[in-house]
Amino acid sequence: MDFLQQLKKKALLVETSFEQFLPDESAYPAIIHQAMRYSLLAGGKRLRPALVIGAAECVGGKPEKVMPTACALELIHTYSLVHDDLPAMDNDDMRRGKPTNHIIYGEAMSILAGDALLTLAFQLIAENIKTAPAEAVTRVIQEVAKLSGSQGLIGGQVVDTMSADETINAETLEYIHHHKTGALFKAAIRSGASLTEASDKQLQALTVYAENLGLAFQIVDDILDVEGEAVKIGKPVGSDEKNKKATYPALFGLENARHKANMAADKAITALDIFGSEGEFLRNALHFIINRDH
Amino acid sequence: MDFLQQLKKKALLVETSFEQFLPDESAYPAIIHQAMRYSLLAGGKRLRPALVIGAAECVGGKPEKVMPTACALELIHTYSLVHDDLPAMDNDDMRRGKPTNHIIYGEAMSILAGDALLTLAFQLIAENIKTAPAEAVTRVIQEVAKLSGSQGLIGGQVVDTMSADETINAETLEYIHHHKTGALFKAAIRSGASLTEASDKQLQALTVYAENLGLAFQIVDDILDVEGEAVKIGKPVGSDEKNKKATYPALFGLENARHKANMAADKAITALDIFGSEGEFLRNALHFIINRDH
Repeated sequence: MDFLQQLKKKALLVETSFEQFLPDESAYPAIIHQAMRYSLLAGGKRLRPALVIGAAECVGGKPEKVMPTACALELIHTYSLVHDDLPAMDNDDMRRGKPTNHIIYGEAMSILAGDALLTLAFQLIAENIKTAPAEAVTRVIQEVAKLSGSQGLIGGQVVDTMSADETINAETLEYIHHHKTGALFKAAIRSGASLTEASDKQLQALTVYAENLGLAFQIVDDILDVEGEAVKIGKPVGSDEKNKKATYPALFGLENARHKANMAADKAITALDIFGSEGEFLRNALHFIINRDH
Repeated sequence: MDFLQQLKKKALLVETSFEQFLPDESAYPAIIHQAMRYSLLAGGKRLRPALVIGAAECVGGKPEKVMPTACALELIHTYSLVHDDLPAMDNDDMRRGKPTNHIIYGEAMSILAGDALLTLAFQLIAENIKTAPAEAVTRVIQEVAKLSGSQGLIGGQVVDTMSADETINAETLEYIHHHKTGALFKAAIRSGASLTEASDKQLQALTVYAENLGLAFQIVDDILDVEGEAVKIGKPVGSDEKNKKATYPALFGLENARHKANMAADKAITALDIFGSEGEFLRNALHFIINRDH
């Protein structure tokens, strides 16, 4: 089975679980549940939940054991996109080839739908107590909150927002990417491992993998924005440049950016050396991220 | 010691703990931590954390045992005010006699500061594992998330927002108040009791108390908006009416609204009958809420 088939299989498991964990579309007040579902079910590769599951499998766990937390990570990712797209933030009208949440539901409902997705995410992680020890669950909540918070995912968005009209240096660019993308990848991978009683050595190796995977992902994302075709990534090509957003190719040149991505990829792959065939999905995930064209 | 002294003592404990739990104002990126602190430290009675502590004391617990969760409830309350004040929502410029968060920090930072307060709240509850059993902590997280989510606090704000320009019926008004105010009071009181190993009977009594306290609080709030003086409550008198917001006095008349508040108060007091002097703070809290003039 190639990586896209493996990923699709995991994505299907996750999407089936959304139905189980999300309030019904008709549940009162219906409009917020429609708005939450609109963005959550708008597609996407389900990479973060797949990484939760992949990390669990890497240390001998089954997908069912970590499913509420896998779904929670996708909820957090989705809430951050919904809020980032708001007029007061990036003011994006389109995402994944569809109108953004606030275009369909209005700004107020979009803010509230983001809040509700974030809140539900923590409820879901807490519900993981059904299949994992309570101590591990509370540790995962602490860590996911920290990596999603003002010094994690949100911190990255803060610096990104403040830098939108400025020339930034390499240090700031790396802060943004490390926090906007890396933090949630790290949260996903460490959560999957922690809920499955990974050893300290395993957790440390997976952390190195996660950090470098996140870095490679964001560099490639920046490169695709320069090279890609609008139809493939579902938003106007060059939109980051138009908004004067900092990108790796803008700062280092295309060739150097590609080199940085490959170096991060090497570190990530090496970190997985302690795992045998059970690390296959995470290895393939890395190759996919480096080589994708959309 | 009268109630205001008791409340002030608890508020001081809570505010001291904020310093321990919040990222430093200078922590990078400083602007978000300043925005978070601006609204969190803008004053307020700290009623929700005081109720967490009061409920814990009611079943024999000490304030220290529930402090991270007490602070978390104030963080959730504050995030909801910050987001509610946004131009896309209630568009309020003033709160507690000061410019609202978005007036000082701008819309983007205000959205992110709200998100960060909400996220930090769950991190704090999880950190309560240091003084309470992990199983109780995960149950509290589930419950606080549910009561703050799309069918709790946020659900109340959704219906309130949708009803802003409409004539609403009593059922809708009660839904709004039950969720916008009642849900968080209930979360506060049940959390304090759950983390202190309350019996089922104690938890049930405190739940009845909480629900009726929340109802009484919101009715009195509506009455104060009609009767109050601008200088005392820190926002323009009649602002709810101006925005065509639903209120108890508007729907039932002032006399009937006052009667409803008193009925709720009676139910709340009766529920506390199983407690002796350890229920004093919660009894006083109710009398204070019913009789306050701001």
